[in-house]
Amino acid sequence: MYTAPIKDMEFVINDVADLQRVASLPGNEETTPELVSAVLEEANKIASEVLAPLNRKGDLEGAVLQDGKVKMPDGWKQAYEQFVAGGWNGLTFAPDLGGQGLPWLVATAIQEMWASSNMAFGLTPLLTQAAIEAVIAHGSAEQKAAYLPKMVSGEWTGAMNLTEPQAGSDLAAVKTKAVPNGDHYLISGQKIFITYGDHELTENIIHLVLARLPDAAEGVKGISLFIAPKYILNEDGTPGKRNDVRTVSLEHKLGIHASPTCVLAWGDNGGAVGYLVGEPGQGLKYMFTMMNLARHAVGLEGLAIAERSYQQALAFARERVQGKPMDPDAGERGTIVHHPDVRRMLMTMKSQIEAMRALCYEYAAQMDIALTHKHAHVRQQTMALVELMTPIVKGWCTEVGNDLTYLGVQIHGGMGFIEETGAAQHYRDARITTIYEGTTGIQAADLVGRKVLRDSGETAQRFISLMQETLAALAVASGGKFKTIEKALARGIDSVEQGTAWTLKSVADDPRLAAAGSGHFLELWGVVIGGWLMARSALAANAKLASGDSDKDFYNAKISTAHFYAVQIMPQAQASADALMNGSEAVLDLAVDMY
Amino acid sequence: MYTAPIKDMEFVINDVADLQRVASLPGNEETTPELVSAVLEEANKIASEVLAPLNRKGDLEGAVLQDGKVKMPDGWKQAYEQFVAGGWNGLTFAPDLGGQGLPWLVATAIQEMWASSNMAFGLTPLLTQAAIEAVIAHGSAEQKAAYLPKMVSGEWTGAMNLTEPQAGSDLAAVKTKAVPNGDHYLISGQKIFITYGDHELTENIIHLVLARLPDAAEGVKGISLFIAPKYILNEDGTPGKRNDVRTVSLEHKLGIHASPTCVLAWGDNGGAVGYLVGEPGQGLKYMFTMMNLARHAVGLEGLAIAERSYQQALAFARERVQGKPMDPDAGERGTIVHHPDVRRMLMTMKSQIEAMRALCYEYAAQMDIALTHKHAHVRQQTMALVELMTPIVKGWCTEVGNDLTYLGVQIHGGMGFIEETGAAQHYRDARITTIYEGTTGIQAADLVGRKVLRDSGETAQRFISLMQETLAALAVASGGKFKTIEKALARGIDSVEQGTAWTLKSVADDPRLAAAGSGHFLELWGVVIGGWLMARSALAANAKLASGDSDKDFYNAKISTAHFYAVQIMPQAQASADALMNGSEAVLDLAVDMY
Repeated sequence: MYTAPIKDMEFVINDVADLQRVASLPGNEETTPELVSAVLEEANKIASEVLAPLNRKGDLEGAVLQDGKVKMPDGWKQAYEQFVAGGWNGLTFAPDLGGQGLPWLVATAIQEMWASSNMAFGLTPLLTQAAIEAVIAHGSAEQKAAYLPKMVSGEWTGAMNLTEPQAGSDLAAVKTKAVPNGDHYLISGQKIFITYGDHELTENIIHLVLARLPDAAEGVKGISLFIAPKYILNEDGTPGKRNDVRTVSLEHKLGIHASPTCVLAWGDNGGAVGYLVGEPGQGLKYMFTMMNLARHAVGLEGLAIAERSYQQALAFARERVQGKPMDPDAGERGTIVHHPDVRRMLMTMKSQIEAMRALCYEYAAQMDIALTHKHAHVRQQTMALVELMTPIVKGWCTEVGNDLTYLGVQIHGGMGFIEETGAAQHYRDARITTIYEGTTGIQAADLVGRKVLRDSGETAQRFISLMQETLAALAVASGGKFKTIEKALARGIDSVEQGTAWTLKSVADDPRLAAAGSGHFLELWGVVIGGWLMARSALAANAKLASGDSDKDFYNAKISTAHFYAVQIMPQAQASADALMNGSEAVLDLAVDMY
Repeated sequence: MYTAPIKDMEFVINDVADLQRVASLPGNEETTPELVSAVLEEANKIASEVLAPLNRKGDLEGAVLQDGKVKMPDGWKQAYEQFVAGGWNGLTFAPDLGGQGLPWLVATAIQEMWASSNMAFGLTPLLTQAAIEAVIAHGSAEQKAAYLPKMVSGEWTGAMNLTEPQAGSDLAAVKTKAVPNGDHYLISGQKIFITYGDHELTENIIHLVLARLPDAAEGVKGISLFIAPKYILNEDGTPGKRNDVRTVSLEHKLGIHASPTCVLAWGDNGGAVGYLVGEPGQGLKYMFTMMNLARHAVGLEGLAIAERSYQQALAFARERVQGKPMDPDAGERGTIVHHPDVRRMLMTMKSQIEAMRALCYEYAAQMDIALTHKHAHVRQQTMALVELMTPIVKGWCTEVGNDLTYLGVQIHGGMGFIEETGAAQHYRDARITTIYEGTTGIQAADLVGRKVLRDSGETAQRFISLMQETLAALAVASGGKFKTIEKALARGIDSVEQGTAWTLKSVADDPRLAAAGSGHFLELWGVVIGGWLMARSALAANAKLASGDSDKDFYNAKISTAHFYAVQIMPQAQASADALMNGSEAVLDLAVDMY
């Protein structure tokens, strides 16, 4: 089963991502380590006792369309009600909306628990949160009053209606229509891949729908955003008449079976009632404002599912007796956790999980600063760093999450291939994370095109300087491990710098070349940022040891794990940089009709 | 669907693995390029028209245990009968046994087709072949006469009964008993993970069973090998009385659903009749004699499933319109095959598929020489090279097969996650290949312990010299691509040499250290051998161009693909070597109770 790694989480929150930075922001005065600790303990109860036990059941039963209604797996509704009753849905939202007002740094750790314990369940609050963000940012006062309280509490869920058969990564191709009709619009068209697009968990579902007005321009600028509830609200604000939206089918997917992925038919009977959000033609732009947090949430799934997979693989490796380990302490026949190659796999998981956690939480802390710091210029400067990190968090953590759940299966040997074991479910569930909310290719394009090129590499260079600051601290830390970490990080940062310069130059020569290299460019950044944060983790642990903290084993393990990352994972940065700078031209060499 | 890549196969058979070498071996005089071509065309008809269309059906229906019998998916029995009627089961076996006497080089290409078109089906001949090899190598004249003709024809299948719940990778722990009883033994015990351990496709199944005699020594040396048919043969050789073996259950697996993975209860009613093969206590040793070809066959599955996945991803990329490609020829909205990042993924697949194919076929050609060359010393010398390659073919091709089916899903975007698309099935099916027939960890241990250390690196050094010979040919080939390939290969070979020296030294210092590095050591060899064979592929293509061959596009594409491998894939060798030599100690640093 699953238990939240609270000690690891607290270490990252307090000592790596630096809770103090966040607690000193306006409105966060009460966010003390003690408060954080108490909240994490409570969340873990729900995650480990309520959600985790439902995970396999959800995989086996899945969400099913019966008589036009989406039936969730047994126990799902009760779990959701418990989740809502505990106030877990509105963690980060303002208290005046009924939320808890917690900073993202803390909420991120809790979100990790939902995704670890039950990724298919965790998508409910994730999608609702995105919809809430959209209404907060762009809705009218009336819309906010009508929808937000119930959405923040979780009594109503949210769904994002973006994709259409011809419009996946390319949302400019959206065809769904919205025709003005008095105070509202009539929406018609087909939407696919709508996560939690229908269910009976709540008495209403608030859809956000991308559609085109009749006179809209072609392409991106003709797309507007609409609110369209499953049940149109009565005068008194309660759900009333069923809107004209029908669930045509649910997809049969490789994983997250319990998450209903809907094909929705809008407006088959005259048009669904929808309300324009903000200005016409701004739909995609509005979507982009939520994209940072939504992509962070999916990157976090990569971490979360890897953590779950690791816990299971480790438990198996500690129980399974097989072969004669070389370890002198292991006895004649020992558990496989003593086999060096199994140790390598477990440490590969552990070290990258810690790197991903540090990245996801660091991102959240920076997001808190970017959203609420008292000085506008700090907010702005920090947001640029956050936006640079967004595709890296999303792209790198999800790719690594897939790699690690692969190892989670591998450590189980033959048992890993048997579905009852459960390791395979994590592997299947993880597979969607590099696809939805923008494929890794889209993240790579975003990193190159929007984040690095837009300001001619200025933010990238600022980030590089930030990482270089850590080198100085490493240089004065004593011990051979810190020397090794310093050397590996310095080399990694150099590669990032060179890779960034190469990318800037390539775009000028031939944009296709930079695009051909974008995948390796993203890997390179991911591996090195991970190494940077592991170095900070080691330094934080070292400071604890220096301060006389009695938990020596824990902090020494942090240093050992960071050192493992430096010597086992950081070499990937060289390979990525090499393939990027010397191999991108070769991508474009062979004509596509010769494949 | 699937069509065998016959042109690519013939290029590798004729020009890279060098059919001429094989045709000049005793008994292979008739194996001309024309014969090979004709056989491949015929095999492709079965693969593409009969087996490929059943693949998804097999996944959906699976093998099911009903009233004690294993029910195969609809159409399976007819397909198997067609397969047997065509004489496809006995390709490599001697004509006097009813086989076709084809060399492994040719049979390997055909085996690739079975595994590509329908991996779950392809396991039937694969397991039967292994059982036949065992009987040929170790059975008595009587046993050979009784079982081989029907097994070679495919009228009876074979099954390998090795694994038990406590004995997976560690077969020394086998507990199944065999008690002497007149001219036979009575076998009892439980076997698990028995592929095609039961079915109704044929009128008999010939089990090979590892078991212990009552007075047997502990461990490896106490294990003997038995033949135990599902139906005990009558005096006239026809299947008679049902043996005492019962199918307890079938496993629910992540993939290869149509392959019945059986839990078999042996001897619940007094003991199953079994016949000792060869000498007592030699069971594991006998298994090892078949291991080379069995592991080669699984490595080949890695290639085969990647080829299938590539064909599907490429077809999708050529159809799917999404976004505005940067390619000036692609029009306003174009197919995604024009997107540079998609091209990178497709070329990553294509180049590694070609490398794996060259490796699997080269291995087969060497195996032909090792088995049938007229001079004993050539056979012996070649067999040492083959044995060195065995864990690399098995370990590296299956890991790469998983990587590439992952990309096959990724190229499909959201559609890849939908089971109906079929890309996910290849991804799931591939997952078993790094596990069965010895996990990647077991292959890595075999490479280090049995293949490199046993002769103090002599064979490894001989292989390195062989690769170095190709550098000279590259040096005189004209064109910048050959310079780049030469440089990358030289660097790769150096890394292999250093990594091998490091491994030999580490074993002396601390065997755990070499074991901790074994995974990277195997990767390193795999990537570089792949690069060596791609270099040979480029040279072969160059020779064709120089000879005035009119198919310029095809041969230029081979050179371009080898160049891609050199600049995009070979950098992984550096990363592996770096992690191996500088990172292995770190694997053993953190105590396992601190994980």
